[in-house]
Amino acid sequence: MYIIVVGAGRTGSKVIELATQDDNEVVVIERDTELAEEVSVTYDCMVINADAASKEILLEAGIEEADALISTTENDSVNLMISMLGKQYGVENLVSSINDPQHIELFGDLGVNIVESPHELNGQYLYRAVQRPKIQDFMEIAGGAEIFELTVDEGAPIAGLSLSDADKDGLLPEETVIVAIVRDGELLIPRGGTDVQAGDTVTVFARNGANDRLTAAFTR
Amino acid sequence: MYIIVVGAGRTGSKVIELATQDDNEVVVIERDTELAEEVSVTYDCMVINADAASKEILLEAGIEEADALISTTENDSVNLMISMLGKQYGVENLVSSINDPQHIELFGDLGVNIVESPHELNGQYLYRAVQRPKIQDFMEIAGGAEIFELTVDEGAPIAGLSLSDADKDGLLPEETVIVAIVRDGELLIPRGGTDVQAGDTVTVFARNGANDRLTAAFTR
Amino acid sequence: MYIIVVGAGRTGSKVIELATQDDNEVVVIERDTELAEEVSVTYDCMVINADAASKEILLEAGIEEADALISTTENDSVNLMISMLGKQYGVENLVSSINDPQHIELFGDLGVNIVESPHELNGQYLYRAVQRPKIQDFMEIAGGAEIFELTVDEGAPIAGLSLSDADKDGLLPEETVIVAIVRDGELLIPRGGTDVQAGDTVTVFARNGANDRLTAAFTR
Amino acid sequence: MYIIVVGAGRTGSKVIELATQDDNEVVVIERDTELAEEVSVTYDCMVINADAASKEILLEAGIEEADALISTTENDSVNLMISMLGKQYGVENLVSSINDPQHIELFGDLGVNIVESPHELNGQYLYRAVQRPKIQDFMEIAGGAEIFELTVDEGAPIAGLSLSDADKDGLLPEETVIVAIVRDGELLIPRGGTDVQAGDTVTVFARNGANDRLTAAFTR
Amino acid sequence: MYIIVVGAGRTGSKVIELATQDDNEVVVIERDTELAEEVSVTYDCMVINADAASKEILLEAGIEEADALISTTENDSVNLMISMLGKQYGVENLVSSINDPQHIELFGDLGVNIVESPHELNGQYLYRAVQRPKIQDFMEIAGGAEIFELTVDEGAPIAGLSLSDADKDGLLPEETVIVAIVRDGELLIPRGGTDVQAGDTVTVFARNGANDRLTAAFTR
Amino acid sequence: MYIIVVGAGRTGSKVIELATQDDNEVVVIERDTELAEEVSVTYDCMVINADAASKEILLEAGIEEADALISTTENDSVNLMISMLGKQYGVENLVSSINDPQHIELFGDLGVNIVESPHELNGQYLYRAVQRPKIQDFMEIAGGAEIFELTVDEGAPIAGLSLSDADKDGLLPEETVIVAIVRDGELLIPRGGTDVQAGDTVTVFARNGANDRLTAAFTR
Amino acid sequence: MYIIVVGAGRTGSKVIELATQDDNEVVVIERDTELAEEVSVTYDCMVINADAASKEILLEAGIEEADALISTTENDSVNLMISMLGKQYGVENLVSSINDPQHIELFGDLGVNIVESPHELNGQYLYRAVQRPKIQDFMEIAGGAEIFELTVDEGAPIAGLSLSDADKDGLLPEETVIVAIVRDGELLIPRGGTDVQAGDTVTVFARNGANDRLTAAFTR
Amino acid sequence: MYIIVVGAGRTGSKVIELATQDDNEVVVIERDTELAEEVSVTYDCMVINADAASKEILLEAGIEEADALISTTENDSVNLMISMLGKQYGVENLVSSINDPQHIELFGDLGVNIVESPHELNGQYLYRAVQRPKIQDFMEIAGGAEIFELTVDEGAPIAGLSLSDADKDGLLPEETVIVAIVRDGELLIPRGGTDVQAGDTVTVFARNGANDRLTAAFTR
Repeated sequence: MYIIVVGAGRTGSKVIELATQDDNEVVVIERDTELAEEVSVTYDCMVINADAASKEILLEAGIEEADALISTTENDSVNLMISMLGKQYGVENLVSSINDPQHIELFGDLGVNIVESPHELNGQYLYRAVQRPKIQDFMEIAGGAEIFELTVDEGAPIAGLSLSDADKDGLLPEETVIVAIVRDGELLIPRGGTDVQAGDTVTVFARNGANDRLTAAFTR
Repeated sequence: MYIIVVGAGRTGSKVIELATQDDNEVVVIERDTELAEEVSVTYDCMVINADAASKEILLEAGIEEADALISTTENDSVNLMISMLGKQYGVENLVSSINDPQHIELFGDLGVNIVESPHELNGQYLYRAVQRPKIQDFMEIAGGAEIFELTVDEGAPIAGLSLSDADKDGLLPEETVIVAIVRDGELLIPRGGTDVQAGDTVTVFARNGANDRLTAAFTR
Repeated sequence: MYIIVVGAGRTGSKVIELATQDDNEVVVIERDTELAEEVSVTYDCMVINADAASKEILLEAGIEEADALISTTENDSVNLMISMLGKQYGVENLVSSINDPQHIELFGDLGVNIVESPHELNGQYLYRAVQRPKIQDFMEIAGGAEIFELTVDEGAPIAGLSLSDADKDGLLPEETVIVAIVRDGELLIPRGGTDVQAGDTVTVFARNGANDRLTAAFTR
Repeated sequence: MYIIVVGAGRTGSKVIELATQDDNEVVVIERDTELAEEVSVTYDCMVINADAASKEILLEAGIEEADALISTTENDSVNLMISMLGKQYGVENLVSSINDPQHIELFGDLGVNIVESPHELNGQYLYRAVQRPKIQDFMEIAGGAEIFELTVDEGAPIAGLSLSDADKDGLLPEETVIVAIVRDGELLIPRGGTDVQAGDTVTVFARNGANDRLTAAFTR
Repeated sequence: MYIIVVGAGRTGSKVIELATQDDNEVVVIERDTELAEEVSVTYDCMVINADAASKEILLEAGIEEADALISTTENDSVNLMISMLGKQYGVENLVSSINDPQHIELFGDLGVNIVESPHELNGQYLYRAVQRPKIQDFMEIAGGAEIFELTVDEGAPIAGLSLSDADKDGLLPEETVIVAIVRDGELLIPRGGTDVQAGDTVTVFARNGANDRLTAAFTR
Repeated sequence: MYIIVVGAGRTGSKVIELATQDDNEVVVIERDTELAEEVSVTYDCMVINADAASKEILLEAGIEEADALISTTENDSVNLMISMLGKQYGVENLVSSINDPQHIELFGDLGVNIVESPHELNGQYLYRAVQRPKIQDFMEIAGGAEIFELTVDEGAPIAGLSLSDADKDGLLPEETVIVAIVRDGELLIPRGGTDVQAGDTVTVFARNGANDRLTAAFTR
Repeated sequence: MYIIVVGAGRTGSKVIELATQDDNEVVVIERDTELAEEVSVTYDCMVINADAASKEILLEAGIEEADALISTTENDSVNLMISMLGKQYGVENLVSSINDPQHIELFGDLGVNIVESPHELNGQYLYRAVQRPKIQDFMEIAGGAEIFELTVDEGAPIAGLSLSDADKDGLLPEETVIVAIVRDGELLIPRGGTDVQAGDTVTVFARNGANDRLTAAFTR
Repeated sequence: MYIIVVGAGRTGSKVIELATQDDNEVVVIERDTELAEEVSVTYDCMVINADAASKEILLEAGIEEADALISTTENDSVNLMISMLGKQYGVENLVSSINDPQHIELFGDLGVNIVESPHELNGQYLYRAVQRPKIQDFMEIAGGAEIFELTVDEGAPIAGLSLSDADKDGLLPEETVIVAIVRDGELLIPRGGTDVQAGDTVTVFARNGANDRLTAAFTR
């Protein structure tokens, strides 16, 4: 793919790192001279040191052939204008970071694929780590359902039981599914007879999210 | 819970918002006067306008009774010192944002629960949105397995089929499980006979991650 | 009219001055505290000291009832986002200053009435004052035609002649029309018999613009 | 012409762009090093990086042979001093931007040709765009008379009528003259029999300025 | 007298101190808020905290009744504009500090009484103190003549002699006049018989300025 | 002479200009790189770009052979330390600018020849220019006596009289001496029979200073 | 004692803390408003928020009755001027921090008791901690002699021996004296029969300083 | 030894100076470019211009072979993180400057050898200089005991006496030992018969510290 990345700050740098690892053709537009130079030295990509909110610069970056335009600045107004210019030039895949949830609709109306503020995301993870310290990673599905990972303690109620037995003992709430088990770095797709062992990292789907009864089963 | 939050920047604010919504007792320590005042006015919490890297200030914030200490500054050195002071006072639940992956080990050795740099996370999401635009949210499991969400296009191969039929037709790769379906805002836990309809948002577990064959099934 | 003005810099202040003189209901949104206070003291309008690129602030300013939204900042990205938000709320009359001519199309597509960069305009006037010092004010029509004002010198060829005589003497190029004459502060709409006198300020329409032959007629 | 331009800011740059396009000999004096370099690279002119309020610098710029001196800084005091120095050296054509209308008289007494603050001008245009959105460009003549452009709506009262018929129908106020019509990019100088069509851009002289009755004729 | 002082920096403050000691009516215009407040507290005068280069402000300061306008800023352009505005309002006595000798003529043409750069003056005094360390204060007359003060050393050739004897002995160059003697704080106007004593401070007029022969007479 | 000048600001530059014109050997010490370079290019002297309050730097500047050390900074503390270091190295002639009259005694005790604040001096001249506009230059002697210059108006009471006649007519106060007359650029040392003419610039010694009666004699 | 402390930075604060603990009458002069307020709130002393290099301020601080004047700023020039002013007013005890060793002599000549740069001291301690990690605190006497503290390791050669026996065994170099022993927080003044035990902190005088042979005796 | 020094500020520079004089292999890590360059030019060491709180940079500096790591920044958090990283890599000798005594314990728990804030130390010395001006250098032992230096005044009670006689006369308090005498730059280790002479600098151990009775013996 031919990808234009606007902004080479901390978020932009990660995008550039990932995009260049996959052998895409990457062009970066960054206004700050120092950042521009750093990216140019570190990654295999072309870097234009200029303000991206300009047709000339976008043309120079090859907007007419670009498959994707990723806008990563911390300023929603700038991200919006760049996405609109990208749309004018018919870029198929427009992606933008947005910083204020109030602006979601504006981007959505333009058909821009947005990724919400990193700070909000991070805040959620930090709080969750306190609220349910057992939960390691999680994803929200609609209606309160969640998928999450947790590790089985030595001596936890579920440790040593097969899934069927755990079910019989009513250890897990209704509509809870153990989707995957990682044991010693190996992934298992569990069946009824699969047993859960201390030290396993299990991925759980729970209709009603992670609650105390559920985490109790995995905790000593 | 009695929670001390250090830092009221963009990440910290989100933590404070979530923690106060859940009726915890929240004390915030923020060095910047303006941010401190803003938080004090906006949320139901006590705010101390001072540098948190000080025993006196942590005692004033009630560290001896705190259940959790969440450090959210953008400076890993500061987060580390605060976590160590928290440990000295026996806070059970220590959580910290970290900004440079090189420092993970230092925090881990102290038993601090860490959440990685928001900028890195955000970079991953942005790039993924370009790489596999159908995928909306995702979570990485071990060994390349992933769980992710996508929406069923009008006219996609899988649209209108029951899961069993989709399986028979070989539409989905091996070891792929549809964990949940959200239809018109309702969550369904699918069985073999459940059908997939255009417009559904489905949550998929795939042993080998999201690949072209898989996304093809959901795309017109 | 109910008018929201965004920005109270030098351009915005002039807008506010004009809009309040005409007894409109004016609400100003200005981010800079000092400017906000100054406007608040000087003009009869409500002032909100905040960043306008926010739905909350626009609602507070009454965007739902506003007849017009005038965006006057020096940043085209900000002007664009504000215009888009204004459009979302159905403001009928969207006006924006733009600073870079490259962005004209973006605003035009949204149906925003734009006014080009003051600096460009000013540059044109300054250069014109050197190029044709006799010309005082001017307006460009299509195809090179211009309307402009100039003053009749004492002893100029045209001084003392009626328009018909001037025509006969071939003093003026083809397709030149004297649209108005201002004499001693009074406006005259000239007919063929009207004479031109030294000291008059005449408004001229010229198909081929102001050229040397034409200005020669008015110069000693 | 031999033209000295003082200041290479946004206004000054436009002057330089226009003046060099016309093959004048242009010397620019700009205090800011960065701006000076940029102009030097972009336009075909000599650039002196210094403070212009100095006889030495003005002599170096060739003030003794200059036909015109254009002062474009945002500081009226500086513009005034430069104009006075220009007068001492006998420059025939002195032009200056002024920023505060209070200073008009000072410059006028010196015989300097002034162009008023771009910000004020811009403010007028923006407000006018709200007040009379049909009007596109305009020029003020004495005593309330104005010349302005507007576009004829599909279905407007005047659309399809000849000027004489429009007159008969009393569609236009007294002492209103249609000076020019632009149709499909072509300029027409209208006579009585010329008809006005939807989509035309007409230039109108109106003794009493643009009022509701007048614009009504052109609006559906 | 009614005196307007523009600028309350270090030079301006001294002017204000002197002018208020003599019971003049003094109005000060100073742009810097802090300086304005300080002057307002320290001296018996009215202070306007604003930019003086404005008719409104000058009128508020009472320019129409002012006997004198003293401009003390470090910016010659500003001093010039203020002097010109003062002249417009007919202030009889216009005085200005100037910082660059190149600008003397501009002010002179306006009839402004100027006082040269304090830094230049100070430089002259410092160098003179090295060049002729005996000389304490001095004033230059035309053609190399000078008046200056020096102190008579114990054991100097002239110490103990009457002026007539000093003359007879040829101690002083031709056309040298001792204008005044200060002895123990008392001023004496010397006659021929007056004697010069060690410790006296004498004021000398010397046609050819202070030279070595002359200072030798007063030095041991 | 071998002269070290500390500081190349506006005052220091004047000292350097004067000292190099007289063919002294001049070494300049200036902390600011830009000022140091400018002086180095403009004057014939050696420049050391360093902080002078250091023995090493002063030795490098040749303090052990210097005849004079002139300290011109705007900071009295720095001037004092440099003067003390100069004294340690036995520099015969120590001169310093001082900015706050309170510090005079400190410098005096060290035997440093001081020159008072340029700003104070300037303030005195500006005020005097208003107070007695006829007086052009002046010097204060002890006990209120002054020497000053003024110009004889056309039609002034003294114009055309000999000094003896002026005396007889009682035109001048007691103990007033006309020390010198400059006529057409020539200096005259007046005797009783010398007449005073309109246009003369006269240097007057007045025991009681310049007062109204005295200036009246020279004014029309 | 009546003590004036100039400067309330980090060094000054410590002085103020110590001086107020001992019930002296303390007056602090600090230029920075924020620091001045902080000290005023924290310690029992009078604080003057002003620049101390002024007679007026020193008089206000009571310099005429002060027993001591401690100057703690980071600027040697300022410390010097303040010490000189203190001397003028006859303060008996003048103490100053100095930052550059080159200035020691200047202060010494004035009879000011100086304390050298904290940064140099600190650097020495840090390096010593690496060079001889056993040494805890030390003091240099003339000619290479030192007094220092070290702790006796479990199993060190000297552990368990009486001083006489240690001497007999030749464990300590010539001219080494154990001045004091601290055991379990108690101080012992050792005699020949006193034994040294593991865990003791001993204070040693060594003519030739701390060398390897000496520290070996105390190390396992 | 192979020593890594973090920070090249005023404290760090002293460490580098001492460490390079002793022919250690020294690597410096300094974030500030200017400081880094200065150290690189002045001392014989390798300098890395980067932030030291990074494994990569520490590895580049050779942390795996380093014998010592000295952290000298003014930020305790940074010093702490660097010490922890040093510990991870098994550096035997970890030394750090600390600025806030509250943090001593954190460093102590890690086994880091700390040196307290230079500002505190300096404050103590300055106050001591006022409190007991005779004392020149001092060291605190446990329980109030001190070792210190003072000079014997001409005519002091102890001057001219042998130590035994001084003891007999009860001139010194109990448990006071004169450890060393420096006379004319020579060090003497005193015995009972050694006499004390005016001008000697004596090193005294005093169980109860320096008190008035003790200092009286050495003072006239």
